Amino acid sequence: MARVFNFSAGPSMLPEAVLQQAQREMLDWQGSGMSVMEMSHRGKHFMAIAEQMKADLIELLAVPAGYQVLFLQGGATAQFAMIPQNILNGKTKACYVNTGAWSTAAIKEAGKYCEVGLAASSEASSFTTIPAVADWRIDTEAAYLHYTSNETIHGVEFSDVPEVGGLPLVCDMSSNILSRPVDVSRYGIIYAGTQKNMGPSGVTVVIVRDDLVGLEAKNTPAVFSYAQQAKADSMLNTPATYNWYLLGLTLQWLKGEGGVAAIEQRNIRKAQKLYDAIDNSSLYRNPVDKPFRSRMNVPFVLHDPALDKEFLALAERSGLSTLAGHRSVGGMRASIYNAMPEAGVDALIAFMAEFERTH
Amino acid sequence: MARVFNFSAGPSMLPEAVLQQAQREMLDWQGSGMSVMEMSHRGKHFMAIAEQMKADLIELLAVPAGYQVLFLQGGATAQFAMIPQNILNGKTKACYVNTGAWSTAAIKEAGKYCEVGLAASSEASSFTTIPAVADWRIDTEAAYLHYTSNETIHGVEFSDVPEVGGLPLVCDMSSNILSRPVDVSRYGIIYAGTQKNMGPSGVTVVIVRDDLVGLEAKNTPAVFSYAQQAKADSMLNTPATYNWYLLGLTLQWLKGEGGVAAIEQRNIRKAQKLYDAIDNSSLYRNPVDKPFRSRMNVPFVLHDPALDKEFLALAERSGLSTLAGHRSVGGMRASIYNAMPEAGVDALIAFMAEFERTH
Repeated sequence: MARVFNFSAGPSMLPEAVLQQAQREMLDWQGSGMSVMEMSHRGKHFMAIAEQMKADLIELLAVPAGYQVLFLQGGATAQFAMIPQNILNGKTKACYVNTGAWSTAAIKEAGKYCEVGLAASSEASSFTTIPAVADWRIDTEAAYLHYTSNETIHGVEFSDVPEVGGLPLVCDMSSNILSRPVDVSRYGIIYAGTQKNMGPSGVTVVIVRDDLVGLEAKNTPAVFSYAQQAKADSMLNTPATYNWYLLGLTLQWLKGEGGVAAIEQRNIRKAQKLYDAIDNSSLYRNPVDKPFRSRMNVPFVLHDPALDKEFLALAERSGLSTLAGHRSVGGMRASIYNAMPEAGVDALIAFMAEFERTH
Repeated sequence: MARVFNFSAGPSMLPEAVLQQAQREMLDWQGSGMSVMEMSHRGKHFMAIAEQMKADLIELLAVPAGYQVLFLQGGATAQFAMIPQNILNGKTKACYVNTGAWSTAAIKEAGKYCEVGLAASSEASSFTTIPAVADWRIDTEAAYLHYTSNETIHGVEFSDVPEVGGLPLVCDMSSNILSRPVDVSRYGIIYAGTQKNMGPSGVTVVIVRDDLVGLEAKNTPAVFSYAQQAKADSMLNTPATYNWYLLGLTLQWLKGEGGVAAIEQRNIRKAQKLYDAIDNSSLYRNPVDKPFRSRMNVPFVLHDPALDKEFLALAERSGLSTLAGHRSVGGMRASIYNAMPEAGVDALIAFMAEFERTH
């Protein structure tokens, strides 16, 4: 059938140009006589692919000197444990901000390794807002402060980098990395799974400031050590080579689109028109405080939940796929990452209007 | 250029039929309108792919009831830490057999978590043999006994499952899984990276007996817990979905070839003719004791190492790729996993004979 507009929260839609190039090169990468999947990760072909990919990420994110850029496995969930294991450095406390399901998961895992101080939480308001940074209770004895810049399930997003004094700032950017410019120099650690804005699943990008490398606790598994991974160029174990290649193709595509600043403008337009359509309807509703609404994940509910099933079935038939909300919250969710074309958002808005007209 | 015969030790050659199917389905998997890379791992399309893949692996390996089959990340290197973290269960010792570079790496990592007793080692003979099992010093107080069924770098392979009494037997089968039938019921844990006989890199298959699940130490990272991964169907973090799909395609291919018993016959023929060519030449030499020679990785040296560079360059020009030995041992290495066609081995043998004739 024709390609659909896929609103999945991740793994999610990829640029068609990326898939086409991967398809063309599947059996023979640039005259090598091999698929990228078949290449030794130590060979000259793959080393060239890996170097280009890393250089492109550093360029797109404007990563300054003084940071290691790692490509690991285990997703954000592995980072939830790796961060305290690597940077507590003898301290017994860490500060966390709880703005949704993913912050909550990070907090739970960190609790295995240290005392977790809650600097702020929007749990009482069902994660529909972000507490003002001025009101955060920041424990200066903590080893670091952790927050989640975009909550995929609840659809709340930070619009600025919070100012947290001298603590190393650690951020889970899984669902909005590369969707807007960010000042990397403000961070101790940025990490993100690739499966939303950077390619297929299977790689976790970790950007870690040099002074936080080499502090890991004894008995940290080798693959979990930032220092060992940095020393091995992220090849301490055999990397997910094909996933690195696809990450690289996606970065090349983003450069061709004009980079992060250009894609941000498109992301603003896409989100704005979808929120406008929701706000101007009497059938749909988004519960998030306007200043904190995510540009990437737009959850919405129908005023009559009995219509959910029909909405999803008709949408699917119209080539609008994977719109069900996360099972923990229900309703609908449109994830509109970098690779979702503006035409996909337009098609969704038109479908929603037609559904409202007929229901 | 034409496809080459790629003797890489892993990532390594894949069946051409697998690459062709992946190529055909790249932009639209079976009328779904999506690439497999774009699918939600919780959606019906991907769940069907995952279930079929797991069922095929269980069938091909004849995994009996009473085992969990997990699909994790981090490679064998992650398992080197996960195994003691998961199954020491309060004990302070584990037994290891050292037959080469990969056993050595497993031993080093295990030493972070327990006292490692060496049941046997062939280090003194430069890992060119395997000590007789009857002579192993097995500590019955140990939590388990670990060995490596095939050493990728040194080219030594166990032909039988060692009998180790009551200890749970743990085996790194990364480089010979699915190349020969194996009695899974003899094992506590079998693990293997996918990048040799099962597909591209990025997945680690772990087969663990039920009684060894749920014993992990406190503070084990969630992604490292066999129990949590088993409960989450290996989706505790977002799995490397496309890699699961390619693993599945490779398993389907193997079934089409007649399964493990059939591929073993081909592997025996391939290895036998290559070792015969080496043994019958005066230029090439394989140092491994004949009963322990690997069917998967055939290292050999030229009597005059000054010829190495020319050998590799001419081989490359003849479409025989990635024949350099591991940097730690030098010389040559031909990895001839399941996906290496018999014609590839024939071409290598012909090239070696011609090179010997002219040098």
